[in-house]
Amino acid sequence: MAADCVPTGIPGVDEILAGKGIPRGHTILVSGGPGSGKTTFAIQFLYIGATQHNESGVYVALDEDPMDIKANMSNYGWDLKKLEEEKKLAFINVSPVRVAPSERGGLIQIGMKEFRLIKLLEAIRQAADDVNAKRLIVDPLTIFTLQYPDEIERIYAMRDLMRDLKKTSCTNLLISELRGTGLEREHQFEEYLAQGVILLRTFMRDSRLIRVFQVEKMRGLAIDNQPRPYEISGNGIEVFSKATVYR
Amino acid sequence: MAADCVPTGIPGVDEILAGKGIPRGHTILVSGGPGSGKTTFAIQFLYIGATQHNESGVYVALDEDPMDIKANMSNYGWDLKKLEEEKKLAFINVSPVRVAPSERGGLIQIGMKEFRLIKLLEAIRQAADDVNAKRLIVDPLTIFTLQYPDEIERIYAMRDLMRDLKKTSCTNLLISELRGTGLEREHQFEEYLAQGVILLRTFMRDSRLIRVFQVEKMRGLAIDNQPRPYEISGNGIEVFSKATVYR
Amino acid sequence: MAADCVPTGIPGVDEILAGKGIPRGHTILVSGGPGSGKTTFAIQFLYIGATQHNESGVYVALDEDPMDIKANMSNYGWDLKKLEEEKKLAFINVSPVRVAPSERGGLIQIGMKEFRLIKLLEAIRQAADDVNAKRLIVDPLTIFTLQYPDEIERIYAMRDLMRDLKKTSCTNLLISELRGTGLEREHQFEEYLAQGVILLRTFMRDSRLIRVFQVEKMRGLAIDNQPRPYEISGNGIEVFSKATVYR
Amino acid sequence: MAADCVPTGIPGVDEILAGKGIPRGHTILVSGGPGSGKTTFAIQFLYIGATQHNESGVYVALDEDPMDIKANMSNYGWDLKKLEEEKKLAFINVSPVRVAPSERGGLIQIGMKEFRLIKLLEAIRQAADDVNAKRLIVDPLTIFTLQYPDEIERIYAMRDLMRDLKKTSCTNLLISELRGTGLEREHQFEEYLAQGVILLRTFMRDSRLIRVFQVEKMRGLAIDNQPRPYEISGNGIEVFSKATVYR
Amino acid sequence: MAADCVPTGIPGVDEILAGKGIPRGHTILVSGGPGSGKTTFAIQFLYIGATQHNESGVYVALDEDPMDIKANMSNYGWDLKKLEEEKKLAFINVSPVRVAPSERGGLIQIGMKEFRLIKLLEAIRQAADDVNAKRLIVDPLTIFTLQYPDEIERIYAMRDLMRDLKKTSCTNLLISELRGTGLEREHQFEEYLAQGVILLRTFMRDSRLIRVFQVEKMRGLAIDNQPRPYEISGNGIEVFSKATVYR
Amino acid sequence: MAADCVPTGIPGVDEILAGKGIPRGHTILVSGGPGSGKTTFAIQFLYIGATQHNESGVYVALDEDPMDIKANMSNYGWDLKKLEEEKKLAFINVSPVRVAPSERGGLIQIGMKEFRLIKLLEAIRQAADDVNAKRLIVDPLTIFTLQYPDEIERIYAMRDLMRDLKKTSCTNLLISELRGTGLEREHQFEEYLAQGVILLRTFMRDSRLIRVFQVEKMRGLAIDNQPRPYEISGNGIEVFSKATVYR
Repeated sequence: MAADCVPTGIPGVDEILAGKGIPRGHTILVSGGPGSGKTTFAIQFLYIGATQHNESGVYVALDEDPMDIKANMSNYGWDLKKLEEEKKLAFINVSPVRVAPSERGGLIQIGMKEFRLIKLLEAIRQAADDVNAKRLIVDPLTIFTLQYPDEIERIYAMRDLMRDLKKTSCTNLLISELRGTGLEREHQFEEYLAQGVILLRTFMRDSRLIRVFQVEKMRGLAIDNQPRPYEISGNGIEVFSKATVYR
Repeated sequence: MAADCVPTGIPGVDEILAGKGIPRGHTILVSGGPGSGKTTFAIQFLYIGATQHNESGVYVALDEDPMDIKANMSNYGWDLKKLEEEKKLAFINVSPVRVAPSERGGLIQIGMKEFRLIKLLEAIRQAADDVNAKRLIVDPLTIFTLQYPDEIERIYAMRDLMRDLKKTSCTNLLISELRGTGLEREHQFEEYLAQGVILLRTFMRDSRLIRVFQVEKMRGLAIDNQPRPYEISGNGIEVFSKATVYR
Repeated sequence: MAADCVPTGIPGVDEILAGKGIPRGHTILVSGGPGSGKTTFAIQFLYIGATQHNESGVYVALDEDPMDIKANMSNYGWDLKKLEEEKKLAFINVSPVRVAPSERGGLIQIGMKEFRLIKLLEAIRQAADDVNAKRLIVDPLTIFTLQYPDEIERIYAMRDLMRDLKKTSCTNLLISELRGTGLEREHQFEEYLAQGVILLRTFMRDSRLIRVFQVEKMRGLAIDNQPRPYEISGNGIEVFSKATVYR
Repeated sequence: MAADCVPTGIPGVDEILAGKGIPRGHTILVSGGPGSGKTTFAIQFLYIGATQHNESGVYVALDEDPMDIKANMSNYGWDLKKLEEEKKLAFINVSPVRVAPSERGGLIQIGMKEFRLIKLLEAIRQAADDVNAKRLIVDPLTIFTLQYPDEIERIYAMRDLMRDLKKTSCTNLLISELRGTGLEREHQFEEYLAQGVILLRTFMRDSRLIRVFQVEKMRGLAIDNQPRPYEISGNGIEVFSKATVYR
Repeated sequence: MAADCVPTGIPGVDEILAGKGIPRGHTILVSGGPGSGKTTFAIQFLYIGATQHNESGVYVALDEDPMDIKANMSNYGWDLKKLEEEKKLAFINVSPVRVAPSERGGLIQIGMKEFRLIKLLEAIRQAADDVNAKRLIVDPLTIFTLQYPDEIERIYAMRDLMRDLKKTSCTNLLISELRGTGLEREHQFEEYLAQGVILLRTFMRDSRLIRVFQVEKMRGLAIDNQPRPYEISGNGIEVFSKATVYR
Repeated sequence: MAADCVPTGIPGVDEILAGKGIPRGHTILVSGGPGSGKTTFAIQFLYIGATQHNESGVYVALDEDPMDIKANMSNYGWDLKKLEEEKKLAFINVSPVRVAPSERGGLIQIGMKEFRLIKLLEAIRQAADDVNAKRLIVDPLTIFTLQYPDEIERIYAMRDLMRDLKKTSCTNLLISELRGTGLEREHQFEEYLAQGVILLRTFMRDSRLIRVFQVEKMRGLAIDNQPRPYEISGNGIEVFSKATVYR
């Protein structure tokens, strides 16, 4: 079953993923620091899906305005508006709108949280149906998880989200923000719940910072788990799947 | 008495375990990071038991859907369905089902927790009886322990679980998720309560990450406690019991 | 769209920012330790805008008295008063005034906080309108964020601030205080919310401390993310965009 | 007075203890990680006392079932049952029994705790009297100290325990679980209260893990406080009192 | 305006401060570990002011008894009593006096805190007026800040203190106690609020501890921010402004 | 005034203390890890005072039974009983006695704490008067400070204790337990309050642990603040004041 994979098409990435891509229907965590190209990675995954594999995509924006995302991505020469018009791409903006102070208080009530999860999932399903999506992004997951200060509740909410995403029949990338910067960071519980984990980090080599791509986990696939250098150029992200990050 | 051991049959592992395996009836902690092959290790232990030693096994899934586990494991060429049909293997899914918001609240009530421990043990006993199991997996233990935020309560719950598992006459592996990644991580209390501890970690050697297997503890057995390299290939896990992980 | 950039004019900085500057209308975090020249950087950005690019600026002072800022900046030979008279520069002092003990208690009431955010934004809009500002500084952001001890509330407040700053049509620098000094500091949530992040830090090289400038993130721009040495001289800040900070 | 010492008889240990052993009547902390041989050390101390010095011993088991301890120890060829029959050795099991949920709640009531300390001490005194014990083990102390989340209460409880143990006229080893693994671990308050501290740890040397024995403290005795390598073989623990753990 | 500086007169220090000294009227944090000579630095600043620059000084003692300070300082041959008699120096003791248990409770009531701040400032103003002071010390600041466990309240209190000190027209040194000893210590919020920061620390060089002086920050002045060695001899503190602390 | 010093007489120590000793009447913190010889240092200070300088001493025991202390110290050949009989030495045991559970609860009431401080000071004064003491030990201070979980209360209690000790006209050593073991430990607030700080630690040099003595602070004295090796032999503590602890 894992033999059925969704090629990312991002240079170098599928070579690392057993030459195949991401197992179809799986939910993958893409975790990186500020400026690491997480959103570029996600849009590139959708763009290649829509233009080369005839797979529509949905981008669920929890923080940044989709207008801004499209403006920033225009540098890569990806015509996202055309894809939207062709119903091959949909952006949905579910970032919490600004509310009056009295209403704001409600944001941290449990009932409200449940409502938000249900509403989020409904919006996702609706948009996925509209374009018959096969690829889906939630960016960033952090806005969602921060609403559950209690760890056990957060884990259950994440599990619920992952189970419902499974029903969409999409292959999903959840974008997450790395807090720790060191080599000895703590593993986050999301890394255990997700079916795959991709890390975008920055290391020092010789006299330079280099960007480092690593597939930490990919259930059902014999992956290359070595860290590999990557670059963000005018064409988007490129991973050098044969290069080593160490001297 | 410790002379009676259950061979794991996993390449390299029994050599490290005094040439014997895991003392029969003991409860062992298998602890590793995301993507370290904890579930593969556990299924391989059950598969070899069922096909080479005529010992039936039970897999208690607390997080992942058994359907997904079986799909992911199909890559190793292990015919788990046949074993299920032959009553040599049973999967039980005791992961908490999704509940309505009002019911959800109950999950963190103490009485509910006790109920869950009792219910979990009943389900385990039932499944173990059905296939006359000799080998048993609980994966992951973390879902269970997270429900006890108070440390002393968590220790008592773990002790209760371990004592009841002892009554099943199975040899048990409890799969646990490592949070700390460094060499100087804190020992977890589970490591003291379990009768054995196996660690699956990732270290740096020369210019590569390598996977590292270590038996930290195995009561009643003169073990090799040195860290040893291991790999996850198309045949499952293989430990290189004579190799060193240091240059 | 990102092609439209605001040149900082600070020696070396625009070279690092793809030869262009800061994407117009974006909100950038400028984060540094005590004595790192954060305020100098910000004033230099406004001064060059007003004198070389005919872009007016607003300086929103949340901690230091604008009188003191102007006195300290006089060493660089920047005639800020002339710019104020020409309506090319405006300073607004929104630092919380000293209140009587009974009134003080109100500072930590939620309603009070909302009021302060709204009042802060009104003052900003007013001053920006007065001089038709294109460049805006908030210094330091820390006084603002410290008022939200709850992390999720702080993130929402920051998002609200950033969204409202967007409506001013200014390019904005938010000055922030670094707590951690090490290479393995935790990323702060502000770094994820801002559209760009500039770090001003101090490293050891050979036998000296050196000041280090780094653009960690700049949405919509292919930046040079390498750390580069900088100096604070009688002419303000100068970044050596071709030099390396490592031996 | 300190001249009167109890020889441990464990190879290498008495050489480190000024050629004498443990000052008679003192209470010593033996602290180590999982799999470090703490229980083996303790049983070996009792076994040698009973067979070579005609000193009876009591083993107070707070976690593991004495049946299991005896099974695990059988590998060393120590005939513990014979010693029990000869009234030279007594095992007492004061590990908290499994209780119904309603009764369980009582475990964390303060009155209950006091009761447990008193009951524990009564059981110890009874067993010590039965065999006229001269050597006594409490394993592990951790189960006891975890019941006092308040630090000052924990210290008083420990002091009370130590004072009462003193009245038994036994020489006592309290077995404790090390949490921190690094060289720069924090000292635990138990180390200050106990009259001696023995550490069983694991260090890296050359390309191997080695087990390291260290007497950190032994009141009234001029000890060798250097770390020394030790091994766990078929004969129990052996410390190499002349070897260095560093290259 | 910053051109008007107060020379410290302490050997080596003014060379580091652009050849000038501390900008007149500024409030500077002097932060160091135990035994680093913080009080010596402060008294030397007052003594030189009174004897060489005809500037009177006030020493506000929050912890140590001024009698003890004077006794300890007598070793440097500074005749502080003569200066007191000449009204060139005043010591005020505002350390909290011992109170009866019932009264003690009041110390941590908010109203009491405000009172103390107001009372502290009144005492300062009174003493400053008495000697027409130009230089002022508060030693240690820590006793003051510890009374505000809430971070935002502490920052407001510090700001209030700094603003009121400004009105005295003195140049002020606030003496503060360093907790962290490492190179990667966290910056303290006081370092951001103060107009200058001087650090007195201890580093290792070759085979010795050396005392290290560093001006981290000095608003309005082009400083030398390199760490420099210093010594405490019979003449007080001497900084070697040309020497490096690294090999 | 500081010229009047109390010689410790401990080999090597007075050389480090400007050739003089401890300033008379000062209160010094002696801080070390388990087994570092803190109590030996303190008793040696009293013994030398009584036998060589005709200065009587008082030992205030807050944890260990004075009987045990005397037994442990007998190894050094110091005839403490003779000194007691000659009224040159007094031991007082103010360690909290064991109380019934109901009484126990009172130990953590604030009123009780105040009472204890007052009672402690009365006992100290009484004993100091009895032998006309010039040297006084409180061992360990930790038992005292642990009773004040609130930091500001603890500081006030410590200050009160120090002020009252001052009235005894004794030179005082407060024995304290080091928690952190690393070179980058945090400074403790006691180090700021005390008039002097002596550290007894353990470092690694070449292939051995060595004991390291350091005077971190000694108000009113030009000390040697370099770490120096020390040993505990049959004659007590000896510091090698000319040797370096580094290679």
